[in-house]
Amino acid sequence: MLSNHLSDGIGMARVPWSQLPSSEEPEGLPTVEDELMAAARSLAGVGAPVESLDYEVIENYAYREQQAQKGKIWFTYTVMVKWLFALLIGIGTGLAAVFINLAVENFSGWKYTATFSIIQHTYFAGYLVYVLFNLALVFSSVFIVTHFAPAAAGSGIPEIKGYLNGVDTHGILLFRTLVGKIFGSIGSVGGGLALGKEGPLVHTGACIASLLGQGGSTKYHLNSKWLHMFESDRDRRDLVTCGCAAGVAAAFRAPVGGVLFALEEVTSWWRSHLMWRVFFTSAVVAVVVQSAMSWCKSGKCGHFGSGGFIIWDISDGQEDYSFQELLPMTIIGVIGGLLGALFNQLTLYITKWRRSYLHKKGSRVKIFEACLISVITSTISFGLPLLRKCSPCPDSEANPGIDCPRPPGMDGNFVNFFCSKDKEYNDLATIFFNTQDDAIRNLFSAKTFHEYSAQSLLTFLVMFYTLAVVTFGTAVPAGQFVPGIMIGSTYGRLVGMFVVKFYKRLNIEEGTYALLGAASFLGGSMRMTVSLCVIMVEITNNLKLLPLIMLVLLVSKAVGDFFNEGLYEVQARLRGIPLLESRPKQFMRNMTAKEACKSQQVVCFPRVVRVGELVSTLRNNQHNGFPVVDQGQNGETVVIGLILRSHLIVLLQSKVDFQSSPFPCGPRGVLNSHKLSDFVKPASSKGKSIEDIQLSEDDLLLYLDLAPFVNPSPYVVPEDMSLAKVYNLFRQLGLRHIFVVPRPSRVLGMITRKDLLLEENGSSATMELQSSSVRGQRYNEDMLRSRIHPESPILDSLLIQK
Amino acid sequence: MLSNHLSDGIGMARVPWSQLPSSEEPEGLPTVEDELMAAARSLAGVGAPVESLDYEVIENYAYREQQAQKGKIWFTYTVMVKWLFALLIGIGTGLAAVFINLAVENFSGWKYTATFSIIQHTYFAGYLVYVLFNLALVFSSVFIVTHFAPAAAGSGIPEIKGYLNGVDTHGILLFRTLVGKIFGSIGSVGGGLALGKEGPLVHTGACIASLLGQGGSTKYHLNSKWLHMFESDRDRRDLVTCGCAAGVAAAFRAPVGGVLFALEEVTSWWRSHLMWRVFFTSAVVAVVVQSAMSWCKSGKCGHFGSGGFIIWDISDGQEDYSFQELLPMTIIGVIGGLLGALFNQLTLYITKWRRSYLHKKGSRVKIFEACLISVITSTISFGLPLLRKCSPCPDSEANPGIDCPRPPGMDGNFVNFFCSKDKEYNDLATIFFNTQDDAIRNLFSAKTFHEYSAQSLLTFLVMFYTLAVVTFGTAVPAGQFVPGIMIGSTYGRLVGMFVVKFYKRLNIEEGTYALLGAASFLGGSMRMTVSLCVIMVEITNNLKLLPLIMLVLLVSKAVGDFFNEGLYEVQARLRGIPLLESRPKQFMRNMTAKEACKSQQVVCFPRVVRVGELVSTLRNNQHNGFPVVDQGQNGETVVIGLILRSHLIVLLQSKVDFQSSPFPCGPRGVLNSHKLSDFVKPASSKGKSIEDIQLSEDDLLLYLDLAPFVNPSPYVVPEDMSLAKVYNLFRQLGLRHIFVVPRPSRVLGMITRKDLLLEENGSSATMELQSSSVRGQRYNEDMLRSRIHPESPILDSLLIQK
Repeated sequence: MLSNHLSDGIGMARVPWSQLPSSEEPEGLPTVEDELMAAARSLAGVGAPVESLDYEVIENYAYREQQAQKGKIWFTYTVMVKWLFALLIGIGTGLAAVFINLAVENFSGWKYTATFSIIQHTYFAGYLVYVLFNLALVFSSVFIVTHFAPAAAGSGIPEIKGYLNGVDTHGILLFRTLVGKIFGSIGSVGGGLALGKEGPLVHTGACIASLLGQGGSTKYHLNSKWLHMFESDRDRRDLVTCGCAAGVAAAFRAPVGGVLFALEEVTSWWRSHLMWRVFFTSAVVAVVVQSAMSWCKSGKCGHFGSGGFIIWDISDGQEDYSFQELLPMTIIGVIGGLLGALFNQLTLYITKWRRSYLHKKGSRVKIFEACLISVITSTISFGLPLLRKCSPCPDSEANPGIDCPRPPGMDGNFVNFFCSKDKEYNDLATIFFNTQDDAIRNLFSAKTFHEYSAQSLLTFLVMFYTLAVVTFGTAVPAGQFVPGIMIGSTYGRLVGMFVVKFYKRLNIEEGTYALLGAASFLGGSMRMTVSLCVIMVEITNNLKLLPLIMLVLLVSKAVGDFFNEGLYEVQARLRGIPLLESRPKQFMRNMTAKEACKSQQVVCFPRVVRVGELVSTLRNNQHNGFPVVDQGQNGETVVIGLILRSHLIVLLQSKVDFQSSPFPCGPRGVLNSHKLSDFVKPASSKGKSIEDIQLSEDDLLLYLDLAPFVNPSPYVVPEDMSLAKVYNLFRQLGLRHIFVVPRPSRVLGMITRKDLLLEENGSSATMELQSSSVRGQRYNEDMLRSRIHPESPILDSLLIQK
Repeated sequence: MLSNHLSDGIGMARVPWSQLPSSEEPEGLPTVEDELMAAARSLAGVGAPVESLDYEVIENYAYREQQAQKGKIWFTYTVMVKWLFALLIGIGTGLAAVFINLAVENFSGWKYTATFSIIQHTYFAGYLVYVLFNLALVFSSVFIVTHFAPAAAGSGIPEIKGYLNGVDTHGILLFRTLVGKIFGSIGSVGGGLALGKEGPLVHTGACIASLLGQGGSTKYHLNSKWLHMFESDRDRRDLVTCGCAAGVAAAFRAPVGGVLFALEEVTSWWRSHLMWRVFFTSAVVAVVVQSAMSWCKSGKCGHFGSGGFIIWDISDGQEDYSFQELLPMTIIGVIGGLLGALFNQLTLYITKWRRSYLHKKGSRVKIFEACLISVITSTISFGLPLLRKCSPCPDSEANPGIDCPRPPGMDGNFVNFFCSKDKEYNDLATIFFNTQDDAIRNLFSAKTFHEYSAQSLLTFLVMFYTLAVVTFGTAVPAGQFVPGIMIGSTYGRLVGMFVVKFYKRLNIEEGTYALLGAASFLGGSMRMTVSLCVIMVEITNNLKLLPLIMLVLLVSKAVGDFFNEGLYEVQARLRGIPLLESRPKQFMRNMTAKEACKSQQVVCFPRVVRVGELVSTLRNNQHNGFPVVDQGQNGETVVIGLILRSHLIVLLQSKVDFQSSPFPCGPRGVLNSHKLSDFVKPASSKGKSIEDIQLSEDDLLLYLDLAPFVNPSPYVVPEDMSLAKVYNLFRQLGLRHIFVVPRPSRVLGMITRKDLLLEENGSSATMELQSSSVRGQRYNEDMLRSRIHPESPILDSLLIQK
């Protein structure tokens, strides 16, 4: 019986194609929503739609053959290469961070030096220089992003989060994205916009990791053999995880925070042996950054000195606290939750509006928008302090160590700006007309009671909050950490001022409240807990505040969760990245797997399929995985595995496996015709589509035996498993396809813990004390060796000629 | 056709029982190994063998019925109770830690006060008092452990690690274990043995969590209804995880370290929403401990003052480092790896010897052994400093802030012991004849160059290392953290002395090298990375050393891993706790699931089974899960699920489901006969065994319909899935049984990401922008509501009367 006639028998390939869209491709209906989608994509810099990643091990013939050939040396070699890559990722990300910080600090330094020297003569010329400087930087940033690297816009964290959750947004890990991200953030941060460089650094780290893993850019591919171990999505995932952690470690000089950020916020799966490698990468970053900074200490790096990397040492701040202070701290947490949730909601609305109306009009509008926002930001930060009356400097004798006003051309607190007298400072200019890093340092500063008036802080809070909301979503690389810290520390300091006033205790520091405010706003917006806490502790270098930071984070996250999701989740959703949460929804417990997938007809292939049929099936639907069905010895049908669309396209393109006979080929026929590397999907590019395949009429009449190429062991669930359990399986193992199958007719065996404790040499894994409690199964080495011989592959049972 | 005759047809219940031992029960052969096993168990305090836990959701009828009845209010209520428990665990563990520290510090204080006042007159009487005081404390500890709480011996971390990996060691979470652990560690630590109280505190936290979850001790059970949500092993696991983190947080006053310890070292599965709760528990502990300590500051707590909780503030230590210092730091790492691996190996040998020869002789030997070690420890720590010549105090003018010798009766550095002059101190007594906390503080102390002679440090290192190895494994609660820190900081300080001598730089601190040494030894022995790093930073309150600590940890772990496994893994293995590592072994990629379980015959039950047959099958084998097989409408066999031994025993005991008809009962017949809570296995007790069931002859002739009680959806894998993939499934989801089944005959559906993004209200989870890319599946609320009505259960298809 011809296998390809089987399709009639079990109603596979002939079922009328219900034009069901797959998750990866839009349905193609010309609705408004589709246009929104396209707009959203172009804003997110995503030229192509999102696609699921294959984190599952595809155990096809080529894979098993490769595994069988692997020896001890190969294993050692792999481990070494992986560690080498962890090292390289750390060095690369560290250097990128140093470069960005160096550039930003120098641009800012030149800008403020020039402006301050000109306003000695005329404020208007100073204003013009200030605005134009900022405008030039922002323009360069938005130009780079819109014209060369559309995927570099935004923070990139939602996309990376999606990648590690199993969804690939095309273009996010390209070389041009990396370049655009680095130079774009120099422009946008140096240009004084209300955004930070920390999110982009995470994306940068991930890009560096991915590019290293594939040996450089896809265009100039170093196709060296020793990189072949990073060919699966699974291996790339580990590298990208390292890259993320390296990015955070570099951005905040917080190595432990980086590990935790990667763990808590970004990754969806975690293997404990990965932790050590991630930790190593973070440590490398810390060493690189530390070395660069100590090299710069001698003044070789221009304006890049003590500032730049965000470390706000508040070790001379408040060390203990009384119980009555817990009330204002809780209030800070509540404010953080409210303002953070509001921030998420406002940015959601504004991003939606922007995508549906503004950004549809092309990149000119994007450039104009960014430039306009730059001019507005510059005007406000220059103009508002002018309206503010200067305050007299605090008594320098009662406050030793305070330099008021700061010496011209230096970083520091107490900025003299538009003041009539010498011994005065402008409190609004101190935080507004300054780099954000310096502003935060000033807000966190201890021993500076009543430096700021409530009026100034409120003005700043409102204006900066508005600017941050409006700036979010423009086509420049933009992080939300530093703006969040700015907003939070402002209201934190406000609360601190009231506490100082009412509690009248000497050890209360306004700067400490500013720090708590910063933590609360980040908690209320991003909803991280442990990692944020560690990052805050690491950047302020003060462990004693840990319990207090924990408290405000707990409160602000709880308040924020009451209203909406975290910033990254909201943004990922908006960008069409379908993140799977860590646990199933409650109603899934009452649904079965069969119900969840009953509306969609499964498209199967017979084992030996006619090429023409294959091509038309692939053209007629958008599925990415197809079950392959064969007949057993007794004529009953049997599912022999899953074949991926991408693998089919490789087979169709190479043509070497086409055969004229409609019968299954023998086991020898497929040996060595394909290596595992032939099936590798290039990272960050869409791969071939079925439309790219050109086949002659003769080719279409040939046959293809799919058996050697299927994944013979996809995960299966019985039809009436609850969807909640299926969800856990899917999410925990990072799957892409699960077969829903009928109940099995019999049980061939049961796997329990003891079956998994075997050692290779045949003895049980546990030691002699334990041997009596483990079944006396013996797999001696000879047996194993015979099995792993490539001449008798494990797939033999599949490849027997009928 | 009678269902129970089916057994003949497919060769189920009649197969000759191959007397294969299951993983949970030893085979019962009277070999030497078995006796070793028994000895091992009795030492580990484990009266009963280990047993796997059921972390999988058993979706039987009762469960689905319960799920269907759950509403929004129930959900909110559950969340609130879980948070309440997190709070209670935090408070409970914090208080327990405060109590232990209070007691230990006071006992030690009295001991040293008495000894020092007596040695003013005669050293021999002082020695006697010292020895007897220690002996009394150690005796009380070992007496409590051997007579009341055998499971309280040792650190408990391997057992807890096993619990969270899915293996229950009976007795570890009992109330008596908790009590024994608390009072036992007061005795053993107060008695001056070379062990710490940190490991036991982790066990204490886990006990408190488990006991809270079940409403108190099993004997005095508070069977209140609101505790019913913690009835599954799965829910208890979350509580125990919180308890572990709380224990570490309390032991080291390191809340972030606690979270990371639970994450990295203890748990095997981790859900990100659990992280927040664990974090909250740790924060609560920190607040409780902080409050207690500030309450004690006024002197109400006797000798419990600045000491006790291990926080060694070295913030005035070395702040930066030169590159040439990296060499001695790497050397410290290597030494740590070597000594740590040696420690693991020596303790392994000595524990094995002890179990096979010494502890078989009963608890008297154990008591004698502990007392002997106590006397030896006291003699060495008192006697060795006597042999040492005193050194003159450093010049008090050149070193302001140094109090030499320390005032009598106080904690402090520079102990005057057996010195001829007043202005002298005994460097060996400063570290040896002192509490371990004070000794570590003295070793870590900064600005005290050349306080110790190399001779004294070497003597101490050798003696203390030997004592720690010998003490490990005695029948008292014993942690390895503090001894590890002692050992490590000794050789660290030694290296530091040489660095000071050769590098001749002023900013090098011997105390900093001592800290790095401590980190390296712990890394070399316990092989933790991130959590250990954070704990070290938190206990020393110095973030600037983070990169250095990372460096030595990386080196020492790498060196240690070259030789053997980590301390906890070695000990778990020795105690017969079969831990599953996080990744499968390489050779498993070349094995199929079928091969892994082919030596064992599966025992199936038909759907309706005769009670007598059930009982004899349960008696004749030790399996814990049995497939249940029924016939479909066309006469073909079909596996309808998995039934657990423990559930069968509940059914046999209650007898209410016995029926005289050998036909399946109708769907109404089973409603409300059992609630989910009937099947709950009590925590920390073995549950009933089949031998406990008494059935009459008449009962044995009746039938039992198993369909309502099976788990209808166990995880299944096709027979030729590679064992590596099966391992991942088992390990990641925390399973106990996996069915190996033949290849399915057809695929009913495919679950992909989009099927799991459904929202309850019927729309897809993603927002409007995304809706076009998600299949237009609709589950309206009415439909859902009809499904969750208990009258039309989801199991209907199973319960149809034939």
